[in-house]
Amino acid sequence: MTTRLLTSDEIAKHNSATSCWVIVHGKAYDVTAFLPEHPGGSKIILKYAGKDATEEFDPIHPPDTLDKYLDRSKHMGRVDMSTVTVEDKAIDPFETERQEYIKNMPILDQCYNLLDFEAVAKRVMKKTAWAYYSSGADDEITLRDNHSAFQRIWFRPKILVDVEKIDMSTTMLGAKSSIPFYVTATALGKLGHREGEVVLTRAAAKHSVIQMIPTLASCSFDEIVDAKEGAQIQWLQLYVNKNREITKGIVQHAERRGCKALFITVDAPQLGRREKDMRTKFEDSGTSVQSTNGESVDRSQGAARAISSFIDPSLNWKDIPWFRSITNMKLVLKGVQRVEDVIKACEAGVDGVVLSNHGGRQLDTAPSGIEILAATMPILKQKGLDKKIEIFIDGGIRRASDIVKALCLGAKGVGIGRPFLYAMSAYGLPGVDRAMQLLKDEMEMNMRLIGAPTVADLDDTMVDTRAVALHSTAIDDTLSLKAYDPLAAPVFRSKL
Amino acid sequence: MTTRLLTSDEIAKHNSATSCWVIVHGKAYDVTAFLPEHPGGSKIILKYAGKDATEEFDPIHPPDTLDKYLDRSKHMGRVDMSTVTVEDKAIDPFETERQEYIKNMPILDQCYNLLDFEAVAKRVMKKTAWAYYSSGADDEITLRDNHSAFQRIWFRPKILVDVEKIDMSTTMLGAKSSIPFYVTATALGKLGHREGEVVLTRAAAKHSVIQMIPTLASCSFDEIVDAKEGAQIQWLQLYVNKNREITKGIVQHAERRGCKALFITVDAPQLGRREKDMRTKFEDSGTSVQSTNGESVDRSQGAARAISSFIDPSLNWKDIPWFRSITNMKLVLKGVQRVEDVIKACEAGVDGVVLSNHGGRQLDTAPSGIEILAATMPILKQKGLDKKIEIFIDGGIRRASDIVKALCLGAKGVGIGRPFLYAMSAYGLPGVDRAMQLLKDEMEMNMRLIGAPTVADLDDTMVDTRAVALHSTAIDDTLSLKAYDPLAAPVFRSKL
Amino acid sequence: MTTRLLTSDEIAKHNSATSCWVIVHGKAYDVTAFLPEHPGGSKIILKYAGKDATEEFDPIHPPDTLDKYLDRSKHMGRVDMSTVTVEDKAIDPFETERQEYIKNMPILDQCYNLLDFEAVAKRVMKKTAWAYYSSGADDEITLRDNHSAFQRIWFRPKILVDVEKIDMSTTMLGAKSSIPFYVTATALGKLGHREGEVVLTRAAAKHSVIQMIPTLASCSFDEIVDAKEGAQIQWLQLYVNKNREITKGIVQHAERRGCKALFITVDAPQLGRREKDMRTKFEDSGTSVQSTNGESVDRSQGAARAISSFIDPSLNWKDIPWFRSITNMKLVLKGVQRVEDVIKACEAGVDGVVLSNHGGRQLDTAPSGIEILAATMPILKQKGLDKKIEIFIDGGIRRASDIVKALCLGAKGVGIGRPFLYAMSAYGLPGVDRAMQLLKDEMEMNMRLIGAPTVADLDDTMVDTRAVALHSTAIDDTLSLKAYDPLAAPVFRSKL
Amino acid sequence: MTTRLLTSDEIAKHNSATSCWVIVHGKAYDVTAFLPEHPGGSKIILKYAGKDATEEFDPIHPPDTLDKYLDRSKHMGRVDMSTVTVEDKAIDPFETERQEYIKNMPILDQCYNLLDFEAVAKRVMKKTAWAYYSSGADDEITLRDNHSAFQRIWFRPKILVDVEKIDMSTTMLGAKSSIPFYVTATALGKLGHREGEVVLTRAAAKHSVIQMIPTLASCSFDEIVDAKEGAQIQWLQLYVNKNREITKGIVQHAERRGCKALFITVDAPQLGRREKDMRTKFEDSGTSVQSTNGESVDRSQGAARAISSFIDPSLNWKDIPWFRSITNMKLVLKGVQRVEDVIKACEAGVDGVVLSNHGGRQLDTAPSGIEILAATMPILKQKGLDKKIEIFIDGGIRRASDIVKALCLGAKGVGIGRPFLYAMSAYGLPGVDRAMQLLKDEMEMNMRLIGAPTVADLDDTMVDTRAVALHSTAIDDTLSLKAYDPLAAPVFRSKL
Repeated sequence: MTTRLLTSDEIAKHNSATSCWVIVHGKAYDVTAFLPEHPGGSKIILKYAGKDATEEFDPIHPPDTLDKYLDRSKHMGRVDMSTVTVEDKAIDPFETERQEYIKNMPILDQCYNLLDFEAVAKRVMKKTAWAYYSSGADDEITLRDNHSAFQRIWFRPKILVDVEKIDMSTTMLGAKSSIPFYVTATALGKLGHREGEVVLTRAAAKHSVIQMIPTLASCSFDEIVDAKEGAQIQWLQLYVNKNREITKGIVQHAERRGCKALFITVDAPQLGRREKDMRTKFEDSGTSVQSTNGESVDRSQGAARAISSFIDPSLNWKDIPWFRSITNMKLVLKGVQRVEDVIKACEAGVDGVVLSNHGGRQLDTAPSGIEILAATMPILKQKGLDKKIEIFIDGGIRRASDIVKALCLGAKGVGIGRPFLYAMSAYGLPGVDRAMQLLKDEMEMNMRLIGAPTVADLDDTMVDTRAVALHSTAIDDTLSLKAYDPLAAPVFRSKL
Repeated sequence: MTTRLLTSDEIAKHNSATSCWVIVHGKAYDVTAFLPEHPGGSKIILKYAGKDATEEFDPIHPPDTLDKYLDRSKHMGRVDMSTVTVEDKAIDPFETERQEYIKNMPILDQCYNLLDFEAVAKRVMKKTAWAYYSSGADDEITLRDNHSAFQRIWFRPKILVDVEKIDMSTTMLGAKSSIPFYVTATALGKLGHREGEVVLTRAAAKHSVIQMIPTLASCSFDEIVDAKEGAQIQWLQLYVNKNREITKGIVQHAERRGCKALFITVDAPQLGRREKDMRTKFEDSGTSVQSTNGESVDRSQGAARAISSFIDPSLNWKDIPWFRSITNMKLVLKGVQRVEDVIKACEAGVDGVVLSNHGGRQLDTAPSGIEILAATMPILKQKGLDKKIEIFIDGGIRRASDIVKALCLGAKGVGIGRPFLYAMSAYGLPGVDRAMQLLKDEMEMNMRLIGAPTVADLDDTMVDTRAVALHSTAIDDTLSLKAYDPLAAPVFRSKL
Repeated sequence: MTTRLLTSDEIAKHNSATSCWVIVHGKAYDVTAFLPEHPGGSKIILKYAGKDATEEFDPIHPPDTLDKYLDRSKHMGRVDMSTVTVEDKAIDPFETERQEYIKNMPILDQCYNLLDFEAVAKRVMKKTAWAYYSSGADDEITLRDNHSAFQRIWFRPKILVDVEKIDMSTTMLGAKSSIPFYVTATALGKLGHREGEVVLTRAAAKHSVIQMIPTLASCSFDEIVDAKEGAQIQWLQLYVNKNREITKGIVQHAERRGCKALFITVDAPQLGRREKDMRTKFEDSGTSVQSTNGESVDRSQGAARAISSFIDPSLNWKDIPWFRSITNMKLVLKGVQRVEDVIKACEAGVDGVVLSNHGGRQLDTAPSGIEILAATMPILKQKGLDKKIEIFIDGGIRRASDIVKALCLGAKGVGIGRPFLYAMSAYGLPGVDRAMQLLKDEMEMNMRLIGAPTVADLDDTMVDTRAVALHSTAIDDTLSLKAYDPLAAPVFRSKL
Repeated sequence: MTTRLLTSDEIAKHNSATSCWVIVHGKAYDVTAFLPEHPGGSKIILKYAGKDATEEFDPIHPPDTLDKYLDRSKHMGRVDMSTVTVEDKAIDPFETERQEYIKNMPILDQCYNLLDFEAVAKRVMKKTAWAYYSSGADDEITLRDNHSAFQRIWFRPKILVDVEKIDMSTTMLGAKSSIPFYVTATALGKLGHREGEVVLTRAAAKHSVIQMIPTLASCSFDEIVDAKEGAQIQWLQLYVNKNREITKGIVQHAERRGCKALFITVDAPQLGRREKDMRTKFEDSGTSVQSTNGESVDRSQGAARAISSFIDPSLNWKDIPWFRSITNMKLVLKGVQRVEDVIKACEAGVDGVVLSNHGGRQLDTAPSGIEILAATMPILKQKGLDKKIEIFIDGGIRRASDIVKALCLGAKGVGIGRPFLYAMSAYGLPGVDRAMQLLKDEMEMNMRLIGAPTVADLDDTMVDTRAVALHSTAIDDTLSLKAYDPLAAPVFRSKL
């Protein structure tokens, strides 16, 4: 590594697969040898060969990535950034419109509920970031049913209960929380906000709620832990690596850094196909790669596939004892989807399960967490297992009333992911702060209105779940409806 | 209090929190000391500091408010109104459009049903008034399901019954009514019509139906009672004050003035969040309060919150005997939402209950009164309690067929609120008169067509309720649908 | 009656309630004394006082009306029609558009199914005629569910049945029919076609199907019978007059003229409110009658009310034996709506019932005939009554598959009304002819595809009715949806 | 047959029913005597009398048709094609738009699922071809429910199963397949692609999937068999001819050419009415044939009817043994629609059944194959018949998750038809190739996500079918909704 500054011209020479340098945060790196190993494929790197890749690099790689995975010999030295000219990008009409939206953003106080953040974020986020966050599997039926399912559960409120004092605090896996939700793990926080997941850490601290740290964070794990305040509780979400030593390293490091529970993702032996994400990625790089009509080109698969190739699809029940052997953290399976597997989890001695379909991003037409919960708890109670394990759900929660429903049905707490990402992407920390405050306001009111002064007062007589499995709330079959050519009446001979 | 007239200039000096005078109905008041106690917050008063506040004051304060709550020493004297110039308001495009609508209003006879008044009112009411009347809790699912639920109940009409003479009269809590509905309590009547609730009193008199007087009326209680004609029946709706002495005063005064029944609201320990109302309020005062993008500003919460801070959230079953002890009026619980609580109400010895979710304004996804009724009556009958108590419902009634359904299922009568507000707001007394007449016309016809010459002939074999709990009628999840970004088909390269 | 011709000027003098003459088909009539008795109200006549009323008179009065109901002394004589100038009507944009549509009508062969006729008729019919034919009660939920219900019944077709020869003929009340439908009674045929109901008679003759003659026909009863060909079968639909002698006269006359069955309408003690019809009527006469905004004006109630004031609402089960006593025709109750009344009908010894809700024009949210049928037949079978009586249904039939479903469920035949009116209104006799032929083509195919070579082969294992009572097919709550103000997301400050 | 070349002028003389010659592929044919026998009617031929008919002839006649069915004496000889001028066609705005779409087609890699091909094909296919492929019976409710039904079946995925290695191969009727779907028979492949069904043969070969050869192929049977590669498996779909000798010839020829199974179509004793197809055909030939408004003209019935007149509607269960007697191929009934007939099929000793409604093209409101399967398998299991016969389904499959659902419910495999036609029509062989690859990609992922490493691991605990028979997914009643005239609110007097 030279101490003199490199110039743009020197780096620009290494612009091919045979010699490929890129600039990241003012330093040059020789990634030629790494090209075939890049989980996202070599193509995306080659697009930036000889150029500054920082903007693309940042959201999908923790800052310690290059130090960890690229030998020091390939660190080519600091670049004189004054020699690097910013490329004029082709004018993208979507981007122009987005800048207009940003200029005219509603002020934060006009967001009255979690869906409002989503409506704003849709307009002000980068197209690719929005596509990555918002997309779901296949026809996005599960994605939407996750939310819709809550609207098929109806309340049966109690009246004339003294609800002057509302206490919405609870414990989850032995840790206190001011309200029964936690910030669930979501990947690539820097797509939405340049500071990434630490924004969520700070908001969680402010509101005394628990944060689950994602394996696929944009910030490094340590950055997120470092952002913790005082006795703030953090959990670790884990994609299990094919290389168990790496997994062991991550788990034991997390425990040492104070994480209190380990959530092993079990619904993603392979990350799902999210076509909205794939389509956006494609369009992004589309014009240059298409040759002739109908010819096969780059099979870009969106951000999800790019970052997940290390996940072990052979993970199975026999691996569970090993996790017990390497850590004393609470052990939770995230992504359980049928009562039979909840019972197996009890037998395996784990401390909890998250009934979840991964935010509708994995198997389409998998049922929502809340629907699984409604089917699961009666059986657990019958078997006397309902106190042996803590049950969480995630997916589709947008209102405190959704949280109340989950608790009535026996959940210990719920995970909320996307809404905080949207609040962060649109408004930063104040956005997440307000989102959490809105949930607390709603929660206080809902507990009053349902007649439950404490979380312990919520019970299954307070909800009517008869309609939940009927799926009567309409989920449009978007692609199919667009492809369908509706029948027409006889045509008058002249248009009127 | 001086006898000489004050001038605009004198009052204008008191335009801050340290000295705040306002003009109401030609008199000046010093409200400086009152600012921190104002239930709607000091901000809204300060907006009018040193100015005429009459227009804003009127709809949300009964006329005796200042006399009752502001010490005589703060009544600063009459104002020479010729010195007060009317402020030019910024032109509001909504208001311009509204004035056009008003000029072109359909004549009253074109309203053929209660929904027609709503369609007209939506266009001709002030934006904030419309928002206050029409809004519901959260996603307004309950608001809409209240109406929709009736369309999931199907008739089983009898034929070949002599229906020449139809008698739709009935008694409710011992009082006669020409038809089994009453005008239920709704707040802030002057938002819709400058005369307020007395318009409803007059229409009720004309049609021999009962009126329930709201705690949160724009007119004073006595004005409404004074407007009564002859043996006209009135009931009192009560929000229970934290200060029970105030409550006692209100109740006993009502009894002395001839009210026949006391409806204690039990579904509103805290008034619901109604975002449509909040959003409108915000926009109304929005431009001046926003400082920089994303900064926190005034947390205006709409009219509902402003007027309800006195309500006691600790009210509970143990308070019921006390009400029995202070009044001989019939006692009814308004807002019961599950059969268990109807049974408790029987045990508590009250005379009636209203199955109601407060017009969808409190807890969203609470079921409609009619759905609760369909679930409740079979159990009451089984327990022999169906004759021990009178059951009423309200919410969503727009057609006499809705009334018929409620009566078939065992209700003694139904409350109707918003439709009369809309009729009043659009057309005044003639509007309410016509609305009631339309219901009578429909009722006569429906009783003929279902084969029931009297109210006593309506029974539960005449309705099919199998679909009511399935919630198959579609309620759009408006906010969520707007936030959702639908999947797209492949894009052709040039727009066609 | 003078023999010299009257002039326009002479008649024009009698243009008020004190002396009111009108011209009908070239003759003048003094209707002054008749004004208060006119079932449609005096106002509508006064509109034509001193003028030619033929165009308005024709569709809603059989040609023999004036001879029957107006004393000969009031027949003032023939008018010299050359002296009568046709009034310029104000240009109605709807009418201009309609004329354009008529010029550009699709040729008949482009109508491939019964709904196609309706789509054409909607554009080419007079506004008031369309409103009268197409309207239903209240929110038109029953009107639409009548059709929709068939789409909640699914087939269970048999395969490998020899279906080379299809015989779709059947008998109904002992009379042969080439296919199991009959032309049911519908009022005011001349609104759609200047020749009126005889057009349907001719088409029925051509296709060997039975016609039910309506009480409220535009043609006189005898004209319709005179149009009969050979052994063509006709039935009589009867609204029972308060004056039983009139009823007796009608019934016995019909029997003498060869009618084979008497269908007593039992679902219309009062004709329903059809707001689409009322609204159209209003607009038609609207401008002249409105005085000041909000003032009450003429309460025009549409065509239905105008023509039905004679119907006896006291008609009941005790009247049935009397009908048996005055005629030997088969006796059928039209408009039965619950199984209890079908059983009563059996006990009363009638020959048949029509499960019907009067085409959705009477009681809204009454169930469809097909849904009642699905609930009724299992009970009749259980009681051994299914062979004692012939069951018909009507309402919503648009496809031969609908007929097949009714027959599978035990109906002997189905009545079809509006579709033939629409076909007649758009295309005259060739339209009705084609409509019937299309049904036969569909019927032949459907019987082949379901594996039933004859009507007797259709049975209840061939349909799945589990979904019919769930009402899962969506019926928009049109008025309510229009009146509803949807929730909005935060508003960006500048419109983009 | 003359050896000299005929000229355009010579042929043009034979342009009437009395002498009708047409040019096909450069040869002239005298079809005068054949006119009355043409299954599609004489009219369509006469349109090309004296002209070149190749373009119209090709897609709906296998190339050997003229040799087979027209006596050699009617083969009039080669034509000097330089003398034949191409007719200017009237400019069709649809065709102009289509050419624009073709120029701007998305590149193949932008198709991420099977519905994407349909969305592209809709724009780039010839109008008549699209109408023939895409149309269904009557209101196309079954057509759409076929797909929709899959979305009423929800998964119950297993977790923590080792899914590193996924094996999606299976056997069907003893033959191996790389994935449990086959290319089902669809008619008239050349409408979509000039090479016709052999394109599908090649794609099937590449992906090691089975192809079912249609009776009504555009290519000749032998062409399709000739296109086979190596051990590629083909089956024969059979419409049974009234002339059993012809049927026998076809069957035995197929067996000799290596076909492994015979699928006898049993759901089409008559081909269904497909109005979209009929309407398109009409418009195509419309202008010239319409004479005066309302007059009857050519009753063109679309492509389906034209090609199917030979099918024997008398085919029945007694014919099955005869098929056994003439072939040793596996025998399968295609189009079984109720469990009773599956049981009969077992008794008749056939090897398999396809639960199918013929792609929604025959009897509308017949249930989907997947719904029949869900109802059928429990009964077969109860009777011990589930292993005696192989069950297939087809209709509506667009995702590998649909295949997984069918297999969970007991199907051995599924047939896919239209999606491959659309892929072929839009992109040719690469399109079909990609479509199959996408299904494989999805299948691998879905088997991972549901926790089933092999096809044998899929079982009925993995799906929740409770909602399937409720038909809660919305299928718009298109024609009816368009014909319906919605209720209106009161009209303001001036438009705003």
